Amino acid sequence: MSSKITALDLPQPELGDATKAYFAKCEEKLGMVPNVLLAYAFDEKKLRAFTDTYNDLMLGESGLTKLEREMIAVAVSSINHCFYCLTAHGAAVRQLSGDPVLGELMVMNFRAADLSSRQRAMLEFAAKLTEEPAKIVEEDRQALRDAGFSDRDIWDIASTVAFFNMSNRVAAAVDMRPNAEYHKMAR
Amino acid sequence: MSSKITALDLPQPELGDATKAYFAKCEEKLGMVPNVLLAYAFDEKKLRAFTDTYNDLMLGESGLTKLEREMIAVAVSSINHCFYCLTAHGAAVRQLSGDPVLGELMVMNFRAADLSSRQRAMLEFAAKLTEEPAKIVEEDRQALRDAGFSDRDIWDIASTVAFFNMSNRVAAAVDMRPNAEYHKMAR
Amino acid sequence: MSSKITALDLPQPELGDATKAYFAKCEEKLGMVPNVLLAYAFDEKKLRAFTDTYNDLMLGESGLTKLEREMIAVAVSSINHCFYCLTAHGAAVRQLSGDPVLGELMVMNFRAADLSSRQRAMLEFAAKLTEEPAKIVEEDRQALRDAGFSDRDIWDIASTVAFFNMSNRVAAAVDMRPNAEYHKMAR
Amino acid sequence: MSSKITALDLPQPELGDATKAYFAKCEEKLGMVPNVLLAYAFDEKKLRAFTDTYNDLMLGESGLTKLEREMIAVAVSSINHCFYCLTAHGAAVRQLSGDPVLGELMVMNFRAADLSSRQRAMLEFAAKLTEEPAKIVEEDRQALRDAGFSDRDIWDIASTVAFFNMSNRVAAAVDMRPNAEYHKMAR
Amino acid sequence: MSSKITALDLPQPELGDATKAYFAKCEEKLGMVPNVLLAYAFDEKKLRAFTDTYNDLMLGESGLTKLEREMIAVAVSSINHCFYCLTAHGAAVRQLSGDPVLGELMVMNFRAADLSSRQRAMLEFAAKLTEEPAKIVEEDRQALRDAGFSDRDIWDIASTVAFFNMSNRVAAAVDMRPNAEYHKMAR
Amino acid sequence: MSSKITALDLPQPELGDATKAYFAKCEEKLGMVPNVLLAYAFDEKKLRAFTDTYNDLMLGESGLTKLEREMIAVAVSSINHCFYCLTAHGAAVRQLSGDPVLGELMVMNFRAADLSSRQRAMLEFAAKLTEEPAKIVEEDRQALRDAGFSDRDIWDIASTVAFFNMSNRVAAAVDMRPNAEYHKMAR
Repeated sequence: MSSKITALDLPQPELGDATKAYFAKCEEKLGMVPNVLLAYAFDEKKLRAFTDTYNDLMLGESGLTKLEREMIAVAVSSINHCFYCLTAHGAAVRQLSGDPVLGELMVMNFRAADLSSRQRAMLEFAAKLTEEPAKIVEEDRQALRDAGFSDRDIWDIASTVAFFNMSNRVAAAVDMRPNAEYHKMAR
Repeated sequence: MSSKITALDLPQPELGDATKAYFAKCEEKLGMVPNVLLAYAFDEKKLRAFTDTYNDLMLGESGLTKLEREMIAVAVSSINHCFYCLTAHGAAVRQLSGDPVLGELMVMNFRAADLSSRQRAMLEFAAKLTEEPAKIVEEDRQALRDAGFSDRDIWDIASTVAFFNMSNRVAAAVDMRPNAEYHKMAR
Repeated sequence: MSSKITALDLPQPELGDATKAYFAKCEEKLGMVPNVLLAYAFDEKKLRAFTDTYNDLMLGESGLTKLEREMIAVAVSSINHCFYCLTAHGAAVRQLSGDPVLGELMVMNFRAADLSSRQRAMLEFAAKLTEEPAKIVEEDRQALRDAGFSDRDIWDIASTVAFFNMSNRVAAAVDMRPNAEYHKMAR
Repeated sequence: MSSKITALDLPQPELGDATKAYFAKCEEKLGMVPNVLLAYAFDEKKLRAFTDTYNDLMLGESGLTKLEREMIAVAVSSINHCFYCLTAHGAAVRQLSGDPVLGELMVMNFRAADLSSRQRAMLEFAAKLTEEPAKIVEEDRQALRDAGFSDRDIWDIASTVAFFNMSNRVAAAVDMRPNAEYHKMAR
Repeated sequence: MSSKITALDLPQPELGDATKAYFAKCEEKLGMVPNVLLAYAFDEKKLRAFTDTYNDLMLGESGLTKLEREMIAVAVSSINHCFYCLTAHGAAVRQLSGDPVLGELMVMNFRAADLSSRQRAMLEFAAKLTEEPAKIVEEDRQALRDAGFSDRDIWDIASTVAFFNMSNRVAAAVDMRPNAEYHKMAR
Repeated sequence: MSSKITALDLPQPELGDATKAYFAKCEEKLGMVPNVLLAYAFDEKKLRAFTDTYNDLMLGESGLTKLEREMIAVAVSSINHCFYCLTAHGAAVRQLSGDPVLGELMVMNFRAADLSSRQRAMLEFAAKLTEEPAKIVEEDRQALRDAGFSDRDIWDIASTVAFFNMSNRVAAAVDMRPNAEYHKMAR
């Protein structure tokens, strides 16, 4: 926590016990506390709202696999050129897939990957929703159904795309720096 | 709750007591339950994460006034052409400002509004962060500081811009319909 | 005519009798003289050319209903974020349709409206012609014919789209301010 | 008048005497009737409104020279890639300037031309107003004043830019074909 | 060689014999030394690499005619608004086709030209590869095969599009000026 | 050479001795033959022109360090989302800089890197020349001079940006696959 995590000078209040415990769990399970959590820690209410949203979205029950959710995270972040999210979630794709090249493909250009038609439909929807949300029409939802997704899956795809369009912008706005550990993971 | 709120067919489980109470409070204070809450209500965990984030962001303590946060909401949604958010938050700008035309200006083009240099800086940052997040650099943060914003304010501006970039995309992806009541409010 | 209608300091010559009579008719029929006419009134030749074009286009005989022409006006102005035209023609859509929400939909995002396939084809053509005129090809005209439009209708759609791409730019360039009356009309 | 001027099949009513006279005058002065006039001639009211607007704008009194107005016409049409207007007005720039290369520069890229700072300011404004009208702010008008333009000149620049954004779109929408004569003129 | 060919002040070493001979051959065959060669002549190794690439690409064996390669050159340069390449290769299209209007069409908007479906497919691929290379997918290559191109032809189309995306950028970056002779050629 | 390097089915003639020797040298020095060379090897003339250009540009004498040239390569390829070039040249940045994170920064978003003002100016020029070549003006060249670059350096920056705008498009058009070895290099 000594080096600069964002470009902002924010108050750094003493962490509460729940947050300390949460961070200890991160250390234990991930070997680090992701910097995004440290960035939000200046206000524990904001931190809690962020982790609740994140954990439900990326780790909760869904018709999308965890890998698929991470693929969306990285494909969206690639369009938005988000250094923080590409680093952290690129590592996650490498790890969850056991396929380091897949992580690179998501970072660089998902259209160069050899994907199933299900996953291609998912990522093309993610790209359109990221680039021109105003142009999404019923045909776009139908294309997801035709690729085998349920309406609940569509909600989850939409929420994941939307969440990273948020996260990418917070990270860009405050110049959030990812933990160095991510770069070497699962190469 | 009888008419269609989104284009998706989602499970509609019985609402828990906490949610019922929350919706009753909405009815009491706003005269309606905003459709976005009904849309999320298919999964109470998601609903809670959403309302926690939203209430902290838009109603919590901040160096930004509530009106300024709503102005950001609408200016971002105008760029993304989000029918739901423009309707709901356009009404909020009209209401909080007591100036119906200001609401229209935010919906239509914030650059046509006669704003203070503080608010113009805030909305120009919002526009850039929405349109080209990858191009935000230190000069952009400095422009906000020069306009009188603290680093904590910058976090709040960033979070609000980012949140509506998320919300706009959820709404677009599922074709979320705003409550009819908004249209007539505070005209 | 006392407050500022545009950002320009233009000569304000005495109005001729024909113009005075025209403005009196506006007052009588609309309850106001639209500011765009006052803006052009510094040169009666320009005013005449503008009103001749406008009246033929928006009020003359056509296979398009007056409401459809106003829908085009607003959908184009929404892409161009024109405060003047969205305000004035948004009111016209509300008035002609008797459906205030339709006006809002055209202002905010025509793709969120529940339109006939005829009107959707018309507005998709309007959007493409506005955004990338160089890419219009025969297939685009054919799509209009397939939606039931005659070649003469295509001329009228094209002219209306084109006219508001002009008007939006005059208004933007001179910061034209709409009459306050529009905001409350037909809500 | 035998070959196809547009892609549309429009009624071709007998021309009235005034129109015949006008076309005869074109033949006499220009050696041809510009196809745009023939295209509008299916409806003499539309033709009149078009020529009234055009003649006032391009030939009427103004602080802009006729060449400057034609330079705007071509620079705008270059951004919009309008075959008709680039052909007809490219010829006009060559003719009025006596400098065939200047015509080519306007068609290809006005930024490659060696222009006075006045003309560069004028064309940069034209480009911004064409490409992102919603982003025009007072600073843009002030830049024109700083380059020596009066407020009346700004109106004329705005009107010319706007007019060709209209004309380019009519031509694109109906696939208007320029008279072959233009190509060889003033080379 | 006396007037300015680029905006850069580069060393002008004595030309070697091979280069002198090459330039003499240009004079003889073309009546001039194209300025692009003079621009590269400050370093004969760079000049050689450029001419080797260029001559193979534009003059070597290929399933594409020389005219088709020049059409690609101009269509790409039109998107990139490259004054040098539009001038030089626009002349080449006029010359090789014996159709001056075809040259203008490629400069102004290839979509306004009356092309075979083969050539339209070729230029649509060129436009997409120029504008959004990251979005090229197998369907785009297949569209070329369906239009009658072999895989080797696809390589040649790709290489030509790519080469002019390079050349356009060198010319833009250094403000390269075309030989005046091109403007009058084959009109 | 057994697996698929591009999506095209190209003739695979016997390699000549010079090419065999060149590839042997690659194997010796790099531990592999870069796939781009194998892709071009179907025609040795094209291969030679490519390697002559490439070797001069990236390895020849220049005021730019080899690392700076590779940084340009990757920053350009990031804008164009080129899987091949990001993979191969991302590895080169990691290797030449001894700083794996710098490689990732160039791949993901050069604006997130902590660069000298010289290198920032260089990459901002690269980005503008890649994204909107038609808008490069003298002020852009002057900004490079102000950052300490000579006119000859500007040529080299321009050539490198331009070359990768070419290379990215060849790779995208033929779906060129990078050697797997790159992914693990210098992590």
